[in-house]
Amino acid sequence: MITKPTLLLDEKKCRDNIRRMAEKTKKNQVAFRPHFKTHQSLEIGRWFKEPGVDKITVSSLDMAVYFASEWNDITVAFPVNILEIETINYLAGRINLNLLIESDETASCLKAQLTSRVGFFIKIDVGTHRTGVDPLDKQKIDRILAVSVSGDFLSFKGFLGHAGHTYKCRTRQDVLEVQNDSIKVMNQLRNNYIKAYPDLVISMGDTPGCSVADDFSGVDELRPGNFVFYDLTQNRISSNSIEQIAVALACPIVAIHQDRREIIVYGGGVHFSKERMENEEEGIVYGRVVEKTDRGWGNIIQGMYLKALSQEHGIVSVPDSRITDYSIGDYLLILPVHSCMTANLMKSYLTLDKRKISRL
Amino acid sequence: MITKPTLLLDEKKCRDNIRRMAEKTKKNQVAFRPHFKTHQSLEIGRWFKEPGVDKITVSSLDMAVYFASEWNDITVAFPVNILEIETINYLAGRINLNLLIESDETASCLKAQLTSRVGFFIKIDVGTHRTGVDPLDKQKIDRILAVSVSGDFLSFKGFLGHAGHTYKCRTRQDVLEVQNDSIKVMNQLRNNYIKAYPDLVISMGDTPGCSVADDFSGVDELRPGNFVFYDLTQNRISSNSIEQIAVALACPIVAIHQDRREIIVYGGGVHFSKERMENEEEGIVYGRVVEKTDRGWGNIIQGMYLKALSQEHGIVSVPDSRITDYSIGDYLLILPVHSCMTANLMKSYLTLDKRKISRL
Repeated sequence: MITKPTLLLDEKKCRDNIRRMAEKTKKNQVAFRPHFKTHQSLEIGRWFKEPGVDKITVSSLDMAVYFASEWNDITVAFPVNILEIETINYLAGRINLNLLIESDETASCLKAQLTSRVGFFIKIDVGTHRTGVDPLDKQKIDRILAVSVSGDFLSFKGFLGHAGHTYKCRTRQDVLEVQNDSIKVMNQLRNNYIKAYPDLVISMGDTPGCSVADDFSGVDELRPGNFVFYDLTQNRISSNSIEQIAVALACPIVAIHQDRREIIVYGGGVHFSKERMENEEEGIVYGRVVEKTDRGWGNIIQGMYLKALSQEHGIVSVPDSRITDYSIGDYLLILPVHSCMTANLMKSYLTLDKRKISRL
Repeated sequence: MITKPTLLLDEKKCRDNIRRMAEKTKKNQVAFRPHFKTHQSLEIGRWFKEPGVDKITVSSLDMAVYFASEWNDITVAFPVNILEIETINYLAGRINLNLLIESDETASCLKAQLTSRVGFFIKIDVGTHRTGVDPLDKQKIDRILAVSVSGDFLSFKGFLGHAGHTYKCRTRQDVLEVQNDSIKVMNQLRNNYIKAYPDLVISMGDTPGCSVADDFSGVDELRPGNFVFYDLTQNRISSNSIEQIAVALACPIVAIHQDRREIIVYGGGVHFSKERMENEEEGIVYGRVVEKTDRGWGNIIQGMYLKALSQEHGIVSVPDSRITDYSIGDYLLILPVHSCMTANLMKSYLTLDKRKISRL
């Protein structure tokens, strides 16, 4: 029974999302190393083992420690934080751990302090300009390699890119263009270094690119994460249909303001996060209400969306035709703008058959 | 030792913030019922007992359950969620519990299901238009009172307002105007109902109003919360000086991009939340870097601010003159835009003398 904000998980949709992406990677003969930062759950992680996944990506060492109890091959897709060297050494002695290096300073620090072997990728900035080495900065890449290969504990795995600028795209065509440009950049690097490092891996993998593209020639490994649940942001990019979104937050109705067509739900920034979308007609949108069905939820109700959030309150804008359909004590089902942030705030999932799934 | 994102708490600043507000309420002979949704910590809660605080406000029943081990008089300043009636009855049997009612539907549900006595406030919309009863809707107020007073378990305490529209103010004068208007509205209600309910309480209390105003004539009880830490949002409203902000997030530096004057820190949306401010010169701001000092932190470094956040990454814009001052493995101290949201994401505090303080 739902009594307070509860993150519902449609297990079928989620497993379908996993299966679809696994099939796509198999068809393309690309290794699949899904990012687990979205669900952060050992149990959901096990669903990936069915289609044969045996290595994963995470975004923090804390997540790596959590997943190391069931996964033996983990890439931490975040620039090495050398202050956490103790945790790195703990994990490196236990599993196949891959790290991201993007400076010779970090490489030197690791080399001086590692006590077990780790793999490393050089993080390449494929155009997002968040972080990573400029792919044209051959000197820097060579400096990192020079430092690393001279030691016992750093094993070069390849180049890793994240085309995060697909998040600014709004059409499939735009996503494909970014994707193709990024792969081109990475393959120039491959060509330059393949002789010295014949086993080097090109690792890519944002959810928009992995969802929209069908051809991954030139890529060896894909690391999408968000696709496990998808969300409204991904839908706007055209990564997924609304039907593929696998999580919805159930929010009790605590007040109804008929005069201004607004419902107040128990569900605020501490549940959804303050991640937002914007459009001219509606203004800021923090989530969209869907129809309740016998088996979970259905379509978005047009014009019914979260327009404001405080810590625990959510204000839902309601169409005229719907305002008398709800009572205090009902709950609304709301699709999140960014499922990673919502899942991170909620401490567990409830499946449609009422099973609680825990997470980190 | 700081190895990953850590929420530092300057205990002296925090205790000063508490003392200052407690003194102000005493001077005004107003009851002080601080809101604990910001810190959510039993230990920090105990610091309020020194100046004599003996009753508190929270924003969820979960928080009420947590604090009920040390506090005997708690108001849940959120419209009653009748789906949580079991928790309400559990608490009502144990402590003096006050709830917020704003509809006769909710009053009827409570009346039918309560097993112990609770106090209730009628939530009044003093102009924020988030939720609450229109103060001119005498019929609705009378309906709520009619339902409630006819039962054994609902005891009318008074009217409660939250002038959340002070958050849109940018000067002390604007805050005072909102504050005065709100008090005026509440006192009209007092005048209308004081004969029937001679002990009724007028409860107010947003942090901007409580920080800026010096005169609280016409108010019986104040419930500010954020002032315990303050933050950049409150500073923009003119509630506090930068020196009064009592929390800063320590974020390890993991990459430096000298060419574009940017530092990448381990500190993202899962630490800060995505709460943001905006100004013409800088664009969107998610936090501001302060000088490190021997005793914690000092002034804001002009032009050094968090300009973007992903799940774990923060991108810090750095002035030309500062970009060579930092190395990988250092950490930056960053003031949050909204301390309630940041504290909610971080699971504990670290005081400047290295004591860990836990929370809900």
